[in-house]
Amino acid sequence: MTIRTVSPTADIAALDAADALAPFREKFTLPDGVIYLDGNSLGALPVDTPSRVAGVMHDEWGTGLIRSWNSADWIGAPQRVGAKLARLLGAKAHEVVVADSTSVNLYKLIVAALGAQRGRRVVLSEPGNFPTDLYMVETAAATLGAGHRLELAPRDELVSRIGDDTALVMLTHVHYKTADLFDMAAITAAAQAKGALVLWDLSHSAGAVPLALNACNADLAVGCGYKFLNGGPGAPAFLFVAERHHATLQSPLGGWMGHARPFAFVDGYEPAPGIARFLCGTPPILAVAALESGVDLHLTVDMQQVAAKSRALCELFIDLVDARCATYGVTLVGPPRGAPRGSHVSFRHPEGYAIMQALIASGVIGDFRAPDIMRFGITPLYLRFADIAAAVDVLEEVLRTGAWRAPAYQVRHAVT
Amino acid sequence: MTIRTVSPTADIAALDAADALAPFREKFTLPDGVIYLDGNSLGALPVDTPSRVAGVMHDEWGTGLIRSWNSADWIGAPQRVGAKLARLLGAKAHEVVVADSTSVNLYKLIVAALGAQRGRRVVLSEPGNFPTDLYMVETAAATLGAGHRLELAPRDELVSRIGDDTALVMLTHVHYKTADLFDMAAITAAAQAKGALVLWDLSHSAGAVPLALNACNADLAVGCGYKFLNGGPGAPAFLFVAERHHATLQSPLGGWMGHARPFAFVDGYEPAPGIARFLCGTPPILAVAALESGVDLHLTVDMQQVAAKSRALCELFIDLVDARCATYGVTLVGPPRGAPRGSHVSFRHPEGYAIMQALIASGVIGDFRAPDIMRFGITPLYLRFADIAAAVDVLEEVLRTGAWRAPAYQVRHAVT
Repeated sequence: MTIRTVSPTADIAALDAADALAPFREKFTLPDGVIYLDGNSLGALPVDTPSRVAGVMHDEWGTGLIRSWNSADWIGAPQRVGAKLARLLGAKAHEVVVADSTSVNLYKLIVAALGAQRGRRVVLSEPGNFPTDLYMVETAAATLGAGHRLELAPRDELVSRIGDDTALVMLTHVHYKTADLFDMAAITAAAQAKGALVLWDLSHSAGAVPLALNACNADLAVGCGYKFLNGGPGAPAFLFVAERHHATLQSPLGGWMGHARPFAFVDGYEPAPGIARFLCGTPPILAVAALESGVDLHLTVDMQQVAAKSRALCELFIDLVDARCATYGVTLVGPPRGAPRGSHVSFRHPEGYAIMQALIASGVIGDFRAPDIMRFGITPLYLRFADIAAAVDVLEEVLRTGAWRAPAYQVRHAVT
Repeated sequence: MTIRTVSPTADIAALDAADALAPFREKFTLPDGVIYLDGNSLGALPVDTPSRVAGVMHDEWGTGLIRSWNSADWIGAPQRVGAKLARLLGAKAHEVVVADSTSVNLYKLIVAALGAQRGRRVVLSEPGNFPTDLYMVETAAATLGAGHRLELAPRDELVSRIGDDTALVMLTHVHYKTADLFDMAAITAAAQAKGALVLWDLSHSAGAVPLALNACNADLAVGCGYKFLNGGPGAPAFLFVAERHHATLQSPLGGWMGHARPFAFVDGYEPAPGIARFLCGTPPILAVAALESGVDLHLTVDMQQVAAKSRALCELFIDLVDARCATYGVTLVGPPRGAPRGSHVSFRHPEGYAIMQALIASGVIGDFRAPDIMRFGITPLYLRFADIAAAVDVLEEVLRTGAWRAPAYQVRHAVT
């Protein structure tokens, strides 16, 4: 099976010809014979990144050695890249740092929020939120004891469930499976009106949809560097703490990099006055360099243009699948055409796992999320309208021929 | 001022000529004009590392994309590199993983140990332990509340201070300032006899001194990847949990990578049965690749040979400084010549900061640790006896000429 071009060919070509973001495709390294619809799980490699990381290895590590903590500003890297990210997030430069993983950052902010909200013991989220988010609350609450607990409420009941015992509402802005999008400003205001703080997980939002944390009066946020920010596999994550909370929230992970004077080497912990108090261990310089390269690339684009192209690509995908694959039992999950959404599209099919394996074998790379969801990341910086059309061609052919029934496509991999 | 060769020149040359480890110097990238005596803070760049990391970037990330989680075994990287490290640590392959930072790993194991030792609330350490170790206990205890606390006792009173309330003894095996070395087997046995667990910080030990965690019946350990393991600036850290504790200790940071079935995407946390339960977020693949390169290099050497050369280099350094610099007020800190020690040597001088800046400006790179310690890392894989002699030449000249009095050397840098 090979990828070929599709249906209203002329229309598709016109869309690509009119695409102001088309030149950005050249900024990424993409393998031949692949339509990459998984940039929401691992963003593609920016062309500039290998030389950036090589420079850090050869010049800063190899030649500069320990001196680079000062001369190459390694020590300032978490704040420097955080300040760049803040522009993408609609936050102040000193409200964001790069550090640790999303999971670890969740823990820091969950425990910090519970500490600041003494008397309130509940973290409220929704069932089916990204697993690590729920796990971090569950294990943080178990660690704290004293009645701290996770409570889950369906999305349409969330606001009404915020009560006197709700310390924190923790939600993923764009749902990882469905691309459902929360109204950040409305939820934040409703929660704050009831005395709760709100922690937003922006893992599927940063670099994907326009964000305005300050305009939404956001309290806390975390997010992932390796998805739409193209920071590399397992890239460092980020966290945001609104300036008004800097003095009152304290990280449970009081590592030396969050100390007011880390190089005084004193025995007692004294948190740094600003966002640096949410740092913990030594920053991972090679990984931060790769992330910075991805972030720098995003700072050259207009997020409103990205959002408009994302919507157009998603809607083309939905329309074509609906027209040509619905008959095989493929149904859209998440926001209907025209509704607010994140930048991925998911479809349900009982044999979704095997169908996805057949798609990947044919060069159309999406992913599978248990139990039955085929998920496709829509990344406007390197996807063409023709790619979407070609991907639907392949999907239709896999379904029509039953190619997914091959035994090889039933084999479960370690990572799905 | 330039570096020149020294004193008993013929003897020094003979030592280098007889050095079986001399060929390993070619395995590292070292800048011209530098004698690098700070490999205990940031290990030098292995020659193989840039191409290893470039391969991961181009082939695994750029071309393999998301498929590399399976095809390049990204998902197994924390355990794969952990198993390699286990050989250096004297542990079983399934007792070590690479994850997070040393600070974060300390937190996991401190809280896990306190949880397993219910009824005991004290973590016992020594004053002047590496700051982040003490800070992590302090902030963990503050998070847990309920009487959990850090207690400090001088080294010679430690064992006698272990009481019915001592849950955990947490010590750094090789002291970061002084290179004092604990007797791991003796302390471990004494603490266990009183019902306490022991957590060893191996940051200045791994790759520097022979280790035998299983032979010492060690319970728990953490360590740093960027010092003697040459894993790169801010490299991922490691942790060790003895097999007998796998089922009973639980990480407070229950991230998805520590889940029994991370890709089932279920709401409830269920820790993995083995060492994987101490993983948290997505592994940092680029950084792990750099660390793996450093670890692979160490697996090709005989640690007893490394230890013998380390001792010889340290003692040469101590002898030469004693003979030529004591008159300027430079005094040895830590173990005297002939005593057990780690692989760095420290000297005290009231003007240690400025003297170290003058040394660095002359190409002899060590570091300073407040308030008055000049610290020199002795890394047998890339240091020659002639380097030690030349470094003492420069130190003597800096002291004799008073070069350190120049105003430029009084300026405090962000990182000292």
